[in-house]
Amino acid sequence: MNYPSKLIENAVNEISRLPGIGKKSALRLALHLLKRDAGQTKSLADSLVALREQTCYCVRCHNIADSELCGICSNKRRDASIICVVTDTRDVLAIENTAQFNGLYHVLGGVISPMEGIGPGELNIDSLLARVADADEPVVEVILALSATMEGDTTAFYLQKKLKESNLKVSTIARGIPVGGDLEFTDEVTLGRSIVGRLVYQ
Amino acid sequence: MNYPSKLIENAVNEISRLPGIGKKSALRLALHLLKRDAGQTKSLADSLVALREQTCYCVRCHNIADSELCGICSNKRRDASIICVVTDTRDVLAIENTAQFNGLYHVLGGVISPMEGIGPGELNIDSLLARVADADEPVVEVILALSATMEGDTTAFYLQKKLKESNLKVSTIARGIPVGGDLEFTDEVTLGRSIVGRLVYQ
Repeated sequence: MNYPSKLIENAVNEISRLPGIGKKSALRLALHLLKRDAGQTKSLADSLVALREQTCYCVRCHNIADSELCGICSNKRRDASIICVVTDTRDVLAIENTAQFNGLYHVLGGVISPMEGIGPGELNIDSLLARVADADEPVVEVILALSATMEGDTTAFYLQKKLKESNLKVSTIARGIPVGGDLEFTDEVTLGRSIVGRLVYQ
Repeated sequence: MNYPSKLIENAVNEISRLPGIGKKSALRLALHLLKRDAGQTKSLADSLVALREQTCYCVRCHNIADSELCGICSNKRRDASIICVVTDTRDVLAIENTAQFNGLYHVLGGVISPMEGIGPGELNIDSLLARVADADEPVVEVILALSATMEGDTTAFYLQKKLKESNLKVSTIARGIPVGGDLEFTDEVTLGRSIVGRLVYQ
């Protein structure tokens, strides 16, 4: 496409490098900014640069933090005996929104994926093992809350093996039919897992 | 939602002010930028600020331009006797992509919309009337290429009345069934317009 100016072309190219935004959407966003107050564009740009350059990570759980320890790790009311292992910060937010978990987290920063060249060495696994081995941290249980994909399962399997030597309870979040889900339309694998992992009432 | 840091919260708020991007998508984009090289975020931010602060508009047709006149107005090969009136820059790009028009443009910057408080005074209408009245510009025809919405039709009607006094040919782009469109599924109004505005073969 022939853009009317170099500035538009540059902006469209930069915006369309973001995931899920194509050239057409990028052009729409660029033209939107041109119609709005210059201050809005400036504060958007500043917030992005500040985010990228000043964000720090919790030294204990690797979640995004404002200071050395994140808000969850520094909260004395959280149960330090349970660690929930997740892929990234978004998963922490998702689990926090359920209000069903009061323990601490450990953010791996990804999952093992040979296809994308991500091995255990690229993930925050050593620091997890150090946490559970640390006598100061009274860890009793590690919950693996990873996606139910091939990569997630591989990572869970790897962690389970690594954690075997410790005397910890290791669990994984339940696989089953989603709440509100129709039994008839649930795929066989999920349905099979929901039977194997059934909850016993009495 | 409780964001893990103030920086993330600011960035999410700023990004979600863009049209079509909600808080969830904004968070995804912010976390994407955190994973990428800091240079990418910097060049994105720079391109946005440069776009907003340095973009100028063609003094003749109000299209986005790199210099005083846009690339189309300064092109000697374009037919200066036909002016195509459009709502905004995106429409110029869309018509240019068809490669069916070799005249000049006039960008209104919007359409008359009493609901949004946009009257004729807010649009580039006076400069259009000045262009067609200017003896130096050999304008023969004005094509109104506005959306087939209530606002577009109102604006077209207004312009038609204003252009009546001049001795110009005033036309509008055809309304009819889209190419590839099934007659059966075309709405009545469109079908009716396609019959009224039929093309005579012989």
